[in-house]
Amino acid sequence: MPRYIDPVARRNLIAEAVWRVIHREGVEGASVRAVAREAGLSSGSLRHYFATQNELLAFAMQLVTDRVRTRIQAIAPPSSGVRAYVEDVLAEVLPLDAERVSEMEIWLAFTGQGLIDPTLRTLRAESAQLLLGLCRQLLDRLITAGEIAPDLDPDLEAERLHAVLDGIALHAVSRPEHVTPAVVRAVISAHLSSLCPG
Amino acid sequence: MPRYIDPVARRNLIAEAVWRVIHREGVEGASVRAVAREAGLSSGSLRHYFATQNELLAFAMQLVTDRVRTRIQAIAPPSSGVRAYVEDVLAEVLPLDAERVSEMEIWLAFTGQGLIDPTLRTLRAESAQLLLGLCRQLLDRLITAGEIAPDLDPDLEAERLHAVLDGIALHAVSRPEHVTPAVVRAVISAHLSSLCPG
Repeated sequence: MPRYIDPVARRNLIAEAVWRVIHREGVEGASVRAVAREAGLSSGSLRHYFATQNELLAFAMQLVTDRVRTRIQAIAPPSSGVRAYVEDVLAEVLPLDAERVSEMEIWLAFTGQGLIDPTLRTLRAESAQLLLGLCRQLLDRLITAGEIAPDLDPDLEAERLHAVLDGIALHAVSRPEHVTPAVVRAVISAHLSSLCPG
Repeated sequence: MPRYIDPVARRNLIAEAVWRVIHREGVEGASVRAVAREAGLSSGSLRHYFATQNELLAFAMQLVTDRVRTRIQAIAPPSSGVRAYVEDVLAEVLPLDAERVSEMEIWLAFTGQGLIDPTLRTLRAESAQLLLGLCRQLLDRLITAGEIAPDLDPDLEAERLHAVLDGIALHAVSRPEHVTPAVVRAVISAHLSSLCPG
């Protein structure tokens, strides 16, 4: 009698194997064969879940988005003020610990790739839209709480906050010796201070 | 008698072939053979200039940095005020026209790659240091001109401006239908306005 295999657990195991292979060898190294070897599965068994390399990559990228969304939803609503809450939420999308560095590396590895492959491009756009929407929501909370100057354009400020987030995340991952977690936090804090002068 | 071939022109011709191949097929497609075909050269002749794919890629990336540096040096010194000059200089490092979009795409294609290959990583770090240094210089000009609040920390503000630049450039290239050149200019302008409240 075949052992029951939880398909969700199996897919997560595979996604983590994809991440390790990409971390070591880049996106182009993440073939179905290499990932099967890393996950301790046969290529045939892996193809049962993901027929092509692009399906594998799309799933790994989707998983990053899901993990970030889950962590954000788990943050307690503001108790010590809206601004502290906003900083906590932003910390969840920034590469401030090993887990989040690895998510960001995956995301970056897809970025160059996503310029070419249409499926990955769509996924990249969805994940960008999610982060931009989050920026807009957080700014709306600050506006409602009266912490932001009312003459600021919230759509434009959401684009600017989104740019700061992705830019500093990029620097934290590509030059970790220079852009340390302390620098990342200081930049975000300076940005929020410039928005909330009170 | 062999025709004289200008080695600088030849190397530039090759670099542009690298760019076109990367644009079409990604970094991993830019093999010595594919680039030779694109440039209308034999692989042997190309290997005379670049022995390996990584030497090719490093040269293409170096060329992006050189082109940006040349354009910045060509900007006339401030006549209509320091802030207008700062905006002109920043426009040269942002993907606001086809040439600069293509430079940014090359740069992005290297970013994922640069996490793995040490030579590319070093080149990426040099180019980041150049852009960070430029941010710091521009901020110093604004400080000297008395346009920036004196209580701002110039090192931290250089990191923040650098993050805004790379973040918005990333968005302009990866989601051009949403982050248009007008949005890029508006974000940069809002950032400078928040630094120079006067």
